Amino acid sequence: MTLEALAKRLQELEAERDSYLADLQRVKAEFDNYRKRTARDQEALVARAHERLVFELLPILDDLGRALDAAEEHEEAKLEEGVRLVHRNLAEALRREGLEEIPVDGRFDPHVHEALLSQPSEEEEGAVIDVVQKGYKLGDKVLRPARVVVSSGNAD
Amino acid sequence: MTLEALAKRLQELEAERDSYLADLQRVKAEFDNYRKRTARDQEALVARAHERLVFELLPILDDLGRALDAAEEHEEAKLEEGVRLVHRNLAEALRREGLEEIPVDGRFDPHVHEALLSQPSEEEEGAVIDVVQKGYKLGDKVLRPARVVVSSGNAD
Repeated sequence: MTLEALAKRLQELEAERDSYLADLQRVKAEFDNYRKRTARDQEALVARAHERLVFELLPILDDLGRALDAAEEHEEAKLEEGVRLVHRNLAEALRREGLEEIPVDGRFDPHVHEALLSQPSEEEEGAVIDVVQKGYKLGDKVLRPARVVVSSGNAD
Repeated sequence: MTLEALAKRLQELEAERDSYLADLQRVKAEFDNYRKRTARDQEALVARAHERLVFELLPILDDLGRALDAAEEHEEAKLEEGVRLVHRNLAEALRREGLEEIPVDGRFDPHVHEALLSQPSEEEEGAVIDVVQKGYKLGDKVLRPARVVVSSGNAD
């Protein structure tokens, strides 16, 4: 290589090196900002998610307060109606969040049921014959298994 | 510069350039992975946050169901007791989420109160004299202003 060609190559290399260094510094700074923003975003995200659900529950708290007022006035019919309303509204609010009742009409399923007791019955062995506590799923996840009584088969 | 010195400088520069390029590629790959992981984390975070709150509300739904059973059996005392329990438990669950009742004992505050009506009273002008609907804050945020009646001063 001539001295001239070498000097030119040297200049090119310097330019390449400087360009990579500038890119590196830029990407590092972006990454850093992204990391900081993400931490802030996550807090805000959880806060907002909660805010919406808590806000939906306020009318339910109001209705319960009104039902209690009715109880104090001994307005039994109004109290009962209020409780029915609250129950329906809370169940609907939770359904909107994705809550689903676990079905109990059929055979015992260890993935979603918890057997509290097994007892003889007219139903075939392994059938769910009573529900002690309802079970619930949220999406794919079992939040709480249904607590059930299972048939151990014919008593004869 | 001698030819030899130039050649050596050229090698050094190549090494520097390659090292910056390698760093750049590594940081870019890390950034990319971080971005993907963050998106997954955020979904999981919101899901988990919701799960916990929904799970806390299940016993309240159960208690309401039991209160309704009591209503059907016309066990009025049990119904009233059940409603009182549900009201307390729901209020406590929401308090744990950071919900606070907005105080209404004092002067009208447009940041947290909504004046539905202004009417003459013995109280001084601008005092809150009645609450139509309770207001709530979640942390610093007003979820719902308290809807109040404000005194317009002495009726004389």
